[in-house]
Amino acid sequence: MPDAILTLNAGSSSIKFALFETGPDLIRIAAGEVENIGAAPHLCIHTGGKLALEHTWPDHAPLTHEDLLGALLDWVDTHLGEDRLIACGHRIVHGGGRFTAPIRLTAATLSELETFVALAPLHQPHNLAAVRAVMALRPGLAQTGSFDTAFHHTLPEAAARFALPRHFYDEGVRRYGFHGLSYEYIASRLPVVAPGLARGRVIVAHLGNGASLCAMAGGKSVDTSMGFTALDGLMMGTRAGAIDPGVLLYLMQSRGMNAEALTTLLYKQSGLLGVSGLSGDVRTLLASPAPEAAEALTLFAATAARHIAGLITSLGGLDGLIFTAGIGEHAPEIRAAICARLGWLGLALAPEANAANAPLISTAASGVEVRVIPADEEAMLATHCREVIGAGGRLRPVRPG
Amino acid sequence: MPDAILTLNAGSSSIKFALFETGPDLIRIAAGEVENIGAAPHLCIHTGGKLALEHTWPDHAPLTHEDLLGALLDWVDTHLGEDRLIACGHRIVHGGGRFTAPIRLTAATLSELETFVALAPLHQPHNLAAVRAVMALRPGLAQTGSFDTAFHHTLPEAAARFALPRHFYDEGVRRYGFHGLSYEYIASRLPVVAPGLARGRVIVAHLGNGASLCAMAGGKSVDTSMGFTALDGLMMGTRAGAIDPGVLLYLMQSRGMNAEALTTLLYKQSGLLGVSGLSGDVRTLLASPAPEAAEALTLFAATAARHIAGLITSLGGLDGLIFTAGIGEHAPEIRAAICARLGWLGLALAPEANAANAPLISTAASGVEVRVIPADEEAMLATHCREVIGAGGRLRPVRPG
Repeated sequence: MPDAILTLNAGSSSIKFALFETGPDLIRIAAGEVENIGAAPHLCIHTGGKLALEHTWPDHAPLTHEDLLGALLDWVDTHLGEDRLIACGHRIVHGGGRFTAPIRLTAATLSELETFVALAPLHQPHNLAAVRAVMALRPGLAQTGSFDTAFHHTLPEAAARFALPRHFYDEGVRRYGFHGLSYEYIASRLPVVAPGLARGRVIVAHLGNGASLCAMAGGKSVDTSMGFTALDGLMMGTRAGAIDPGVLLYLMQSRGMNAEALTTLLYKQSGLLGVSGLSGDVRTLLASPAPEAAEALTLFAATAARHIAGLITSLGGLDGLIFTAGIGEHAPEIRAAICARLGWLGLALAPEANAANAPLISTAASGVEVRVIPADEEAMLATHCREVIGAGGRLRPVRPG
Repeated sequence: MPDAILTLNAGSSSIKFALFETGPDLIRIAAGEVENIGAAPHLCIHTGGKLALEHTWPDHAPLTHEDLLGALLDWVDTHLGEDRLIACGHRIVHGGGRFTAPIRLTAATLSELETFVALAPLHQPHNLAAVRAVMALRPGLAQTGSFDTAFHHTLPEAAARFALPRHFYDEGVRRYGFHGLSYEYIASRLPVVAPGLARGRVIVAHLGNGASLCAMAGGKSVDTSMGFTALDGLMMGTRAGAIDPGVLLYLMQSRGMNAEALTTLLYKQSGLLGVSGLSGDVRTLLASPAPEAAEALTLFAATAARHIAGLITSLGGLDGLIFTAGIGEHAPEIRAAICARLGWLGLALAPEANAANAPLISTAASGVEVRVIPADEEAMLATHCREVIGAGGRLRPVRPG
């Protein structure tokens, strides 16, 4: 009678989840998503690669995240039958300077995590609301939290400090970095798929709807493109990425924009969507004949290449470049455009391998090994969750209970 | 009886000037500065390398920029004797998207330049006030304007566009770049001092109290680190440089800072001064035993190296790196720290040449030629001025009148 772990990644309008059986290995037995929360929520669950359940609630039904998590937990119980759900592992965007490893979520730790809401106002509240909802729905269920910032706790101070008066750093205004679960997963895969790179100087490009870079030396983060918030660094689907701070001052002074208007502009209306005027989705833009679509994609690739080159200065050279997440895994045109601007590194893509989204997409002669590794943040969440509940909160491999 | 040209660079609390004789060559016959305007103004003039005049006005004397420019023009007339001042060339920070070459300054062009005040509120008003003052003091004197933005009018659109909704670009919210007079001067020197680099891929690091980079291909600007404002890009003496825009949103929302407070923070209290807590002056920090001083300098060098590497993606490789301006010319420790983070490019400094601030500071085997070229924005201003008044406003070499 195997036990199971549920992973949750709760955002403002969606909840992504996966269910893992905790045998000798963690085996994903179901995965899915509730989308469109707040309007007409749509639940979709796959098991064994097949659609197991699909349900749409009527538009404007007064369904909260808690209602929907209740429906999900009921389905999990039914699906598991005699098996037992032993824990729920949450993705939490911000662990501040305090949480550098996964933790057991309790009323006390939740209170601490609430203090980081101002550091990630668009994500942290939804992450924590899901924890509270599960506490209310299944009071006895163990819950753990894994932090998107934690993998970057190894950043040297020079990489983490902004050029602001020093008291800001002490007060927590510093580079944290995000997408840490994705980077930790890649770091865990490198010894298996590319042992040379696991010990080397690697940049991982997590290119999804959010996008960032991590410079890793020997599997540890030494620099990253996102900073204090997930707005920094690369151009993204709808986010501007790093932008002259003087632009914000100008928009405040000359156009009377306040923090709320700037937040909407920079998080929701910019990036690929803003520049193309069409869509924030790379697939849509690649399929479009509009010159604005091409322009947006060119800028996206140029910005990514510029930041990749910049991060090399924190590594002292580059042995490997890894692409992951939606765009990174599935958009050969974007990978090719980025790598074309890095040819001076001696980096050479193998066009056919790249077109096929193959695991190794550089030529044998390339001075930089270029790879595609599929992201799996849920596997990382489940691994953390099992470690934390099995080891009393400390991080070490444990036998399944 | 040679004619003379006066160049002016007017800021909020200082006016820098130089006087050139317009023979077959432009010969600098005097240079100086009025400092501390608004408190106890201090005028200092050198001729032939020697102090010619020094004067301090009493504290809180009600002296305006116009009063002080009047005193300067009177000295110029006396000093020239029978020679004739034929024009005054001004450094103007912002030419917007419209002025891509030096111009004759008239009431009409001044009105147009006023429209760019919002793009450079800390500099443009003072630049224009000096033009008006000279118009009032010497109504018949020809005046010309040279723009710090103009050299970058060759930026490709992908380098000039921010990842904002496209209408912002059309409305002028784009990367302009600054320090153009310095870069144009360097571009004019390269064919003389390093002909190979003049045709090649070069990054110029203008490291002064303000600091920026220019990526040049064949002597034309193709990318630059400053953006819409002179706040962007590198860490500077008291400016933060590029910083996660989410930091500004946080300071607005969580600390109630408004645009004025943020402007003061990011322009005046950050950079080397903010991180060290001691000084914004590299010389002071290099002489300090405090660990905070070393930390600030390390961050300065790391940030510069990161941006240099990033700009290489706009050049497709790097043939030369040129250091100029106060820090660039006179701080071997900073050049060494920047270059140490670029060793993976095959760049190798020659320590003794570097220590001596020699013109060529890389080894013969270095994959990148590294040079020091002294800045001379005044020479560029005078050259522009002579071209504009001699050619009816068009830019071409002319014989001295």
